[in-house]
Amino acid sequence: MCDPDFDKGGGLLPAIAQDWQSGEVLMFAYMSPESWRETLRTGCAVYYSRSRRKLWKKGEESGHTQIVREILLDCDRDTVLLKVEQVGGAACHTGHRSCFFTRVEAGGTIREIADRVFDPDQIYRDRGERS
Amino acid sequence: MCDPDFDKGGGLLPAIAQDWQSGEVLMFAYMSPESWRETLRTGCAVYYSRSRRKLWKKGEESGHTQIVREILLDCDRDTVLLKVEQVGGAACHTGHRSCFFTRVEAGGTIREIADRVFDPDQIYRDRGERS
Repeated sequence: MCDPDFDKGGGLLPAIAQDWQSGEVLMFAYMSPESWRETLRTGCAVYYSRSRRKLWKKGEESGHTQIVREILLDCDRDTVLLKVEQVGGAACHTGHRSCFFTRVEAGGTIREIADRVFDPDQIYRDRGERS
Repeated sequence: MCDPDFDKGGGLLPAIAQDWQSGEVLMFAYMSPESWRETLRTGCAVYYSRSRRKLWKKGEESGHTQIVREILLDCDRDTVLLKVEQVGGAACHTGHRSCFFTRVEAGGTIREIADRVFDPDQIYRDRGERS
C-alpha cells in the first residue's frame, strides 16, 4: 500500500490537479488523510479546505467534479499530482478553466490571460463553495 | 507590481514547476520572498529549501538549472506556477525527468513509471543538492 507523507505539511498533503489530456495545471489544494482515502475510494478529487476546516469534495456545490484518471506521488512522497478530467470545463471558482490565469510579466506587473468558462454567480448562487 | 500572498503558507509560497513545452509537471517546492525576488531578477528558478533552511538556486550544484519562461499566480495569489525550460533534462535529484515518477495504482499499490535521465551519484558527487 502507498503511504504518502502527511507530516511535512503539518498533516496536509500538497495536491496539484492537472488536466489529464491537455496537461494544463488546473489548481492547487491540500489533502488530509481522509481526503486521500476518499479520493482513492471514490475516484473523484476530494481535498481539505483550510479556510472551512473540513473535507472538500471538489464540485460538490457547483457540480464541477474532478474524475481522477491518474495519481502520482513525488520522489519524497509528500506531494501528490492528480491527473483529472474536469467536469464542466472549469476548475476555478472564478469561472476560469484553471486557477492560474494571472500572468506575472516583466517588471512584476500582472495580466489576466484567460476567459471565463462560466459565470460564478450563476453557478454557486451564494452556496459557498469558493475555496 | 505583483504581490503574492506569502502569509497563508507561513511565509512560504507553494511553487509548481512545469515544463514550458511538454506541460509535464516537474517538481513542487516553496519560495520565500527572497526566492521570489531572485527568480524575477535572474530569470532562473530560485526556491527555498525547508530542510536546509536557505535559499536554493535550482541546479546550483548539478548544473540542472531552470530557465523561467512564464510565471503564473493562482486566483488567490498564494500559489505560483513556473513554466520552465529544464536544463539537463531532469528536474529530480534522483535523476528522473520529473519528481512525479511514482504512480499510485488500483488498491493503493505503487509503481515507478519513468526511466532515469542521469545517474545522481555521478552528478552530485556527494555535494548535497538533494532537496
